[in-house]
Parts: sequence; structure tokens; C-alpha cells
Amino acid sequence: MSTTTAGQSATARVRAALAAIETSGRPEIWIAVRGADELLAEAAAVDDAVAAGTDLPLAGLLLAVKNNVDVAGIDTTAACPGFAYTPERDAEAVDRLRAAGAVVVGATNLDQFATGLVGTRSPHGTVRDARRPDRISGGSSSGSAVAVALGLVDIAIGTDTAGSGRVPAGLQGIVGIKATLNVVSTAGVVPACRSWDAVTIFARDLGTAELAMGTMAGGARPWPADVRLAAPSRPRVAYPSSLPELPQAWAAEFGRQIARLQAAGVDAEPIEFDVFLQAARLLYDGGLVAERYAAVGAFVDAAGDSLENPAGLDPTVAGIVRRAGQVPAHTYVADTARLDGLKDRAMALLEGFDALVVPTAPFHPTLADVAADPVGVNSRMGTYTNFCNLFDLCAVAVPAGEVEGSQFGLTVVGRTFDDAVVADIARRIETAPPAPELFAAGAAPSRPLPLGEPWPVRAGAPSVPLVVVGAHRKGQPLAHQLESLGASWDGHVRTAARYRMVALDTQPPKPGVYRSEDGAELVAEQWLLSQAALGQFLAALPEPMLLGSVRLSDGSTAVGFACDAVAATTGTDITRYGDWLAALAASPAGQADPDQEAHAGGSRGQDSHRQESRGTLGDVLLTGFTRGMQAGTTRK
Amino acid sequence: MSTTTAGQSATARVRAALAAIETSGRPEIWIAVRGADELLAEAAAVDDAVAAGTDLPLAGLLLAVKNNVDVAGIDTTAACPGFAYTPERDAEAVDRLRAAGAVVVGATNLDQFATGLVGTRSPHGTVRDARRPDRISGGSSSGSAVAVALGLVDIAIGTDTAGSGRVPAGLQGIVGIKATLNVVSTAGVVPACRSWDAVTIFARDLGTAELAMGTMAGGARPWPADVRLAAPSRPRVAYPSSLPELPQAWAAEFGRQIARLQAAGVDAEPIEFDVFLQAARLLYDGGLVAERYAAVGAFVDAAGDSLENPAGLDPTVAGIVRRAGQVPAHTYVADTARLDGLKDRAMALLEGFDALVVPTAPFHPTLADVAADPVGVNSRMGTYTNFCNLFDLCAVAVPAGEVEGSQFGLTVVGRTFDDAVVADIARRIETAPPAPELFAAGAAPSRPLPLGEPWPVRAGAPSVPLVVVGAHRKGQPLAHQLESLGASWDGHVRTAARYRMVALDTQPPKPGVYRSEDGAELVAEQWLLSQAALGQFLAALPEPMLLGSVRLSDGSTAVGFACDAVAATTGTDITRYGDWLAALAASPAGQADPDQEAHAGGSRGQDSHRQESRGTLGDVLLTGFTRGMQAGTTRK
Repeated sequence: MSTTTAGQSATARVRAALAAIETSGRPEIWIAVRGADELLAEAAAVDDAVAAGTDLPLAGLLLAVKNNVDVAGIDTTAACPGFAYTPERDAEAVDRLRAAGAVVVGATNLDQFATGLVGTRSPHGTVRDARRPDRISGGSSSGSAVAVALGLVDIAIGTDTAGSGRVPAGLQGIVGIKATLNVVSTAGVVPACRSWDAVTIFARDLGTAELAMGTMAGGARPWPADVRLAAPSRPRVAYPSSLPELPQAWAAEFGRQIARLQAAGVDAEPIEFDVFLQAARLLYDGGLVAERYAAVGAFVDAAGDSLENPAGLDPTVAGIVRRAGQVPAHTYVADTARLDGLKDRAMALLEGFDALVVPTAPFHPTLADVAADPVGVNSRMGTYTNFCNLFDLCAVAVPAGEVEGSQFGLTVVGRTFDDAVVADIARRIETAPPAPELFAAGAAPSRPLPLGEPWPVRAGAPSVPLVVVGAHRKGQPLAHQLESLGASWDGHVRTAARYRMVALDTQPPKPGVYRSEDGAELVAEQWLLSQAALGQFLAALPEPMLLGSVRLSDGSTAVGFACDAVAATTGTDITRYGDWLAALAASPAGQADPDQEAHAGGSRGQDSHRQESRGTLGDVLLTGFTRGMQAGTTRK
Repeated sequence: MSTTTAGQSATARVRAALAAIETSGRPEIWIAVRGADELLAEAAAVDDAVAAGTDLPLAGLLLAVKNNVDVAGIDTTAACPGFAYTPERDAEAVDRLRAAGAVVVGATNLDQFATGLVGTRSPHGTVRDARRPDRISGGSSSGSAVAVALGLVDIAIGTDTAGSGRVPAGLQGIVGIKATLNVVSTAGVVPACRSWDAVTIFARDLGTAELAMGTMAGGARPWPADVRLAAPSRPRVAYPSSLPELPQAWAAEFGRQIARLQAAGVDAEPIEFDVFLQAARLLYDGGLVAERYAAVGAFVDAAGDSLENPAGLDPTVAGIVRRAGQVPAHTYVADTARLDGLKDRAMALLEGFDALVVPTAPFHPTLADVAADPVGVNSRMGTYTNFCNLFDLCAVAVPAGEVEGSQFGLTVVGRTFDDAVVADIARRIETAPPAPELFAAGAAPSRPLPLGEPWPVRAGAPSVPLVVVGAHRKGQPLAHQLESLGASWDGHVRTAARYRMVALDTQPPKPGVYRSEDGAELVAEQWLLSQAALGQFLAALPEPMLLGSVRLSDGSTAVGFACDAVAATTGTDITRYGDWLAALAASPAGQADPDQEAHAGGSRGQDSHRQESRGTLGDVLLTGFTRGMQAGTTRK
């Protein structure tokens, strides 16, 4: 049995979910629910594997899959019965989740061909909001989002081209992660707009969503060698200076949430939002929509437009796809160029910010609102999501309170491959909202991600552990150097008992470590860095500091600090403290003065640092160590 | 006066070039030659700046610019008189070359709107081959290539979408560099197919071309943090297993050139070439051509097709552009998807290879051949160039002998951002062919690039110097570790007189270096690594090796090796040799045995290396050192 599912067996969870689905009174969520026998057999196999000691990080997590994503043996319809085909194997994303122990419960309803943000465009029925059934669920990943919100499953796969993995997350009060494009493979997914399609994940909390995303992502588009693995401890976010489409109460709630973020140590500043809105309009009013015809136009044309409509085409969707077939290529090419120009301007606006925070959905329409103006309301729903994939950005949608009886959500949007950064900032927003377990027989708290292991690392982003003992520890004066390189703090470790530590006469004060046959264990901390960040850090490291292989108390090795031979022989031995912070605390100077810190700048001409930094604080500290040592053990 | 131009003043070179242009009898090369007064004034300003000590790396190099690239004050026509506009400032590429001391002589003829690979599609006349005037020059950068081939200028800017910066280089026996897309800014350039346009450089030798490319590139598209900065010392290249479009003699010449490459230490293996050819066909027969209409279609349509043709439209070009306006967007989108699929297959074929070597042009048609079949011959000319920009590859075209009285050329094609790798391999092919200085009054040998500084580094590719003293020196047993990380060898250096060196008991034998107040200068070598390569190298470095700041004899610092305290105290001091290779030579074991080398693999579990590697060679070597030391100075 897995810790993920808080002690419940997969079999018990499947039974509970089947019962909850039955009693939920929401048949429109599903296009197909797998048969009980088949499901229970699969769950039993997971339980057996766990009992046999197999490491299944998602063991027994219940998964729903949007029906434009292949699940072996379940018809992929994209919510158009005439389009159905029976896939022989799972889409890559599904396959990875199942291989980690997740159990597919069924295939969920969607806006046909993933064309819509409302949840009303399906011959399988309108998917209603989990809490307010007179309102829309949001779409196009409507069934997946509501299945998670109702606690029928733990996680659900969605897709997202213009916001389909975020708008329904916002309206349903759950988490939706839309990673950088193609970080999750789209193999086995019915394309909507091939250039901008993403496979997404929904969960009730960010930890579960990250765990699943870290499992299903990876391989399709390589992470860059300088990928950022965390937000800095004091992130700086931008937010729109004006909020088109938001009713007054929603705008006020957004303001309150920004203030809450600021109170939580996030710097937030308004930016002009117009270029983002222009990109959004390009998708609906310009030539880019031609991708929809390229995806399914031949099918829609062949299905004809007779009143009998044997294929089950949604009339709104069919109209959009047919019109998309009329776009000339030069218009598409010109709009792509326009988009590139808008992206350049948008990226310039985001310069110096770690992310952009926007409302996820601008308002919560009733079913009647959408029926009255199906295209207009749909377009307005995408105001804060459309630009994202067009600009190749990543995003995490998280719940952020309620407004006028509806769920309010924020989305953290980041640059290409800044997936770990936006997750970190989203974590600040997440205030552990109680899961709305309306039918929560099967729901259970999910296992949080191991501290400091960002999901992109799980998904193959290259990282190197760096062990630090002194001024680069969390909260110490040089930690910001690692933070600015996108390093992720990875917890406490201990070195093997083979190192000695001396106090160096530097500003800020630093310990020097060297290997010795007469060594001791030292308290240390570990960061994860990208390969390029480690190279950059080394290039800027001043004498007498060195980096190389360090052995830890568990026998593993990592990259860690050493000092050079001159420093080792001239520094004052403080090995007996076993911990730089303890040594610091024992010195009269106490904590280092951050104003006195030395920056590691360009690699050339830096090593005069040690000579220049001979200052009062260092002297005082050294004196303190010398005095302290009179009462302690000195090195033999 | 600059060394670039071998002692000649810019003024003298401009005078000579103006005379050569006058007597060349090739007016069709130029759309505009700048007036003598203006040119001489600019040349005098360059001479004055050099005399005043200004560092102008291209001082006095004569530059021609294809007339679809803006030069302030010269009409940009793209070889269509009716399209002309007068730019107020230089295109970014031109601006960078001028800022470095190059002097723009004039604007060159081209296939109209850069649509063609022949050099015949211009109302300014057909540009004839430099040596065989009954044959084509190749295009579309026809005037630029012939101006360089005839020695009228030193360097010339071209553009390249389907091969326009390579085909004319091949036919004219000169070098053409087409960098990775957007490494050179296209600001100020008339688009041909916006997604695949590149600004290129021509020169008579690779060194000059690289010097110019390193000057005009940078900033438009960031280099990745793991950019490769050199080819390995034994590169592995692929070549097409069959050679469509090549006459028998040309195919035989290609075979001879591949054999020559192999003899020069390059491993070459045939691969299936069909997917590359399929991509080439997509450009001519598919929907991608719509980009040409997006670029200039509105102009061509407005210019009408009256017989009077006041705009000076080339009928072949106008026909191509007009037909491109008829493509539906969904066809373009579908062809883009097809292209992505072909690229995946092509990249899989190139797995394990450093580059692909192809013939540049497949044959050398006469003017009459092209007149008889203007579209057909043109398409065939692009057989070995078309796929390159579509797949986002980089390429260098270099001369490689003659065949049937024409110039034969090879093109080295590499992955995105492998610009330094293809330049290295192209350098193997370049056999310093004598510049065909038919009118070479102004021509002079150009300054070679400083050793080991690849042009991408000049153009902003991030790099870090790493100083090595032992087994990572060129030719030594661990140099391959740096080569496989794409490191570029950057020459010999000396450390400052503050280090001691010991012989370590490792396999292969390694020196350990540590800082000491009783230190000496050590002979060393420097490599350039990307930031990510340095991080990866550090992560794999086994105990007792360390990396950190090392001071050099010139007072600068770089990253360099140290050994840890245990190694420093237990190793045998060999500082007196001043050079690891001298110490090795003095030992009975002599050179290290490469078969015994230890690989630095993953970072975990590596530091048992030292203990495990206690082997015969190390013992013998240590014994040797010990014996040697009895006659020498031992450390105090």
C-alpha cells in the first residue's frame, strides 16, 4: 500500500469512486467509465505490485482522461461520436501515469475537438459546475475538471490550447498545470491547434499536480542546460494594470489576492497588458485559427452539414472549423509574424519579473449566458489564458478564494521552461484550501512532493547537487547567488567524517573545508543547480574557494566546497563546532553582516578579493574563534 | 593601419577596388557602387581611427552588400526597381561590420526578391560566373559571390533561404557561412520566407569569413548554455549514400573529397538521404512557399502584370510569388507538421555524427540551360541546400577543387547552434586554395582568427576558460572528456608563480596542483567551455581533483585545477619540472598509457576512484618520480 493514498488500497479507492460516480448524478462528466471488473482487476494488480515492494509513486491514484487523449481500448471521440477510433495503446502521458501506479477510471467529456472554454459544446451534454449546476464548468477540459473537483478522481488529464487546462481549473477551484509546450508529449492526442496544444494535469492540490506532472512530462522537448529550478526567496511578479472583462467584485478580489501575495513576501507590480490582449485576439479573430481546420477540417467537411448530423457535430464547433478552412496561408504567415512581434514586446514587459499573475477566468457565466451568445462569451472567457501558449509560456492555475458564490482563481504565468519557478510562486498562493470533497468517499490526502525536488527535475531537467556548509546556506549572506542562478534548496545533509573546517578571514565570513585523515562530519545543506548554473557559479568563485567531489554521510558523493592549501593552513580550525552556524553563533560577532558581503562577479581579476577583504568583521570574528578555541579542543 | 589588410591603408584599398571594378567588365554585379569621394572619405576616417589606436578588427576590409539588405542612403531594391526604398540606417548586420572598420563599396545584384538559386532573375542583368562567363554565378546572392570571387571586395553579405548563401559560394569557389537561423539579426532585410531567412557572409577564405561572421552575429537569438565550441579532434561526419542530380564526374569528385577528408582524420559514413530530399521538395512543391507571398505578394499584385511592367518585375519571380498567394492556410499548417516529422527522422539519422557533408551545388548550368527551363534547373540547384534552413541547421560552404572546369564545393551542415563544430570541420576541408585574384589589385591576405577562439564566442556564445596542467592537455589521455563536451582548445598559458605540483597515484597519472607561498610558474593549456559543459565536467570530477580560481602569469584569473589537502600532502612533489609533460618524460614510465585511463562518469559514487586505481602504472611512475627527485631539488 502506498503512502500516496494514505493507507487505502487501490481496490478500496476504485470501489469508492465507482459508488461516488454512480451517486453523483453527473453522467455528463463521462464519455466512458471503465467496467468495474476490469477496474478492480487493475487496482488489485497495483496493490499486489506495491505489496511486492515495487516503487509506484502514484500507486492507487485515480485518473480521469479527457477523451481527446488515447487510452488503450477506450474509443477516442474528442466528443464527436462520428470521429471515434479505438486506440491500441495509451497516449504517452497516460502510459507514464499508469506505469507509476495511477488507475484510469474513465474518459471525460469535453468541448468538441477541444474547441471552447465553456463545457457546453458536446453532444454528450453540458458539463455543469461542480457547486452551482446552473453555471458552466469551463472547458474544454470540462469533465476532467469537474471529476477532480467532485473528488471522483484524484488527478485528471486535460489539454490546453487557449486555456482549456486553466479556465475550468479556475472555475472549479482546483489546480491546473499547463507546462511549457511539448514538455509533455502530445503523442496520442487529437490535435486542436498543433502548434499550441499542451497536455495538462488537474488535481485538488499543487503537490499532487506536481507529482503527476513530474511523472507524465519529459523527453518530448529537451530542457535547456540553464533551466531555472526555483523562484528566488523573494520573487517579483507582474500583474495587469487594468482588468478587462472582470466584474467589479472580481476585480476587487484580484486586488485583494495581489495584496495577500505581497503580504506573503512576493513583490508585485502592475504592467501594461495590452500586447497580451492583442495576442489573444489574434487567435480568435485572425488567421491562426487555420490550425483547427488542419487538425479536423477534412473530417468536418466530410461529415457534411445535413440536419440529421449522424457524426454528432456540435454546430458551433463545426462552424468555427469550417470558417478556419477559408484562411489563406499568407494571412496565417503574416499573423505568425505579428505574433512574434507581440511576443517580443510582451517579453520586454516581463523583463526583471519572475512571473506574471493574472485572474484565471474573468467571470462565471450561467448556462443561459452561453446559450445566448456561444461564441462571444467563449472568447471573453479566454482573456487571461489565450496569449500563453501563443507566446510559449508555462502556467499554473491555483484556487484563490471565492467571489460572488463562485470560485476565484489565479494563474501564475512564466517564461518558456520556467515551470519550476511558476510552481514555486503558485505554492505561495496555495493556502491549502480544503478539497471540495462533495462525494469524497474515494478521496484522500495525497503525498506531497519531496522537499526541494521540483517537478521538472523529476521530468528530466538536468540538475547537479551542490553541498554548501557556510555562507551559501539558506538565509546566509551568499545564498542569493544560488537563488539568482535558479537553484532549488534541497534540504540538510551531513558530510562523511573526513573533513576539517577553518574560519577564513573573508567578508562575509566563510568557512574553509578540506579533506583530512583526521576529519569530522560537518552539517551542510544541498541545493540543486542546472549544469550551466553550476558552471557559472564556478566561473565566478573567488580564491581561496574550490569545488569538487565531497562524500556525504550516506556514502554518496556530490559537488561541494573546499578551500585551497594556503587557506587551509592559515585559517583557524573550527572543526569541533561541526556546523558553521554553530561556530558563527559562538563568535562575538554572531551572524554575518549582509551589507559587508562580497559578490562573486566576473571570473577575471576576482582573486584579489581575499587580500582586499581584510576588514573589521573578519578580524573580530577571527578573534572570537581564537578566544573560543582556548576553551575548546584544538587540532592535533 | 590594420594587420587585417597586410599593411595597406583603407584608402589605398578603396582606390584599387574602384579601379578593379571599372576594369572588370562586370557591371551586372552591382546595383549601386558608392561614389569615389564618399568612399575615400570613409576609408580615410577608418585609417585615421586606426592611426589613433582604435581597435577595428575589420579595418579596411572591403564589403559588398546584397541589395535586399539595407545600407543607409543606398536604395534597397531587392532587384526590383519599383520596390525601391531609401533606408535611413544600415541593417544590423551591416552596421556591425562597419562599426568594426569594414567599408561598404556598394550594393550587389541578386535574383529578384532573393527568389532563385541561379543569378539570372534580375532586370539588372544576369550575373555571370567569375571564371566561365557562359555559365551562371549561382544565386540568389549572385553579385555578392562574384564580387568576392573576382577579388573586388574582401567580404560580401548575402542572404540564404533555400541555399542563396551557399550555392553561389560553391560555384564561385569561395567560402559562404550560413549560421543558425537568427544568430545574425534579419532587421533591415527584405524578407523572402520570413521563417527561414538567414543573413550570410562570403569571403575567399574561412578565417576571414569567420572573423566577419563573429562580428556581425549575436544578440538576435541567444546561444544555449551548452553550446558546443569545437568539433572533436576526430570528427565523425555523415554523407549521402546516393547523389541525385550530380553528373558522374561530379559524383566521382565528391567521392574523392570524402576520401580526402578521411585521410585527414575525419570519420565519414554514408546515410540514407531521402528525408532530406523530401524536405527540399516541400519548399518548392508544397504550401511553405506561401511565405513568399506574405513577404512581397501585396507589392507584386499591386504592380500588376501589364506588358510595360514599370516596376521591373522578373516574370519568373512574379509567377512564383503570385502562385504562392493561392495556398490555403491549412495546407501550409499541414506541410509544417510534415516538415517537423521529416526533421525528427533526419535528426535521428544524424545521431552520433558531428555533421553532414554534402556537395554544395550539384552541377554548373550554362546561361542557356537556365533560359530553357528556368524553374526546373533552379529547383535542381537546391537539392543539397533546401533542407537546411527548413530543419534549422547551420552550414559552411567551402571550395573543394575543380571538376570539368568548374569549381567544386562541399558544404558542412550541422545541428542548430553547432556553428563552431561545422566551422572546425570545414577548416579540415579548406586547403588554402589560392584566391582567384583575377583583378586583385585591392586584395590582400586577411588576418586569421586568433587560435582557439571560435566565431560563436566572438558573437556572444557564453564560454568559460578552463586551465589544465596535466591529463586534460591536448593529446593527453583525458583530453577527450573536454572534447566530448564541445570544448575548444585555446592555446598555452602559464600560471603565476604561486603553485606547487605533485604526482598523484592515479590512473592515468595526474598532477595535483595546490597554491603555496613557496610556489612556481607551471606550464598549462587553456580550453574554452560552455557554462553547462563546465558544470557537467565539475559534476563528474573524481576526488581528489578540485576546480577554482587560478591566477595566470599575466595577472588574469581563470578556472583551473587543484588537488585536495590529502593528495597535496601525500603526492610526490614535482614542482621543479615546471611542466607535467616534462615530469612525465623524466619518469621511467614515460607517456601515460591511454588504455588505463579512468573515466569521470556520474557524480555519485565516483570518489572511490583513487583507492581503486592503485595500479602498476601509477606505482612505476611514482617510483620514477622518487628516483628522479634524488638528483633534483626537493621541497623544503
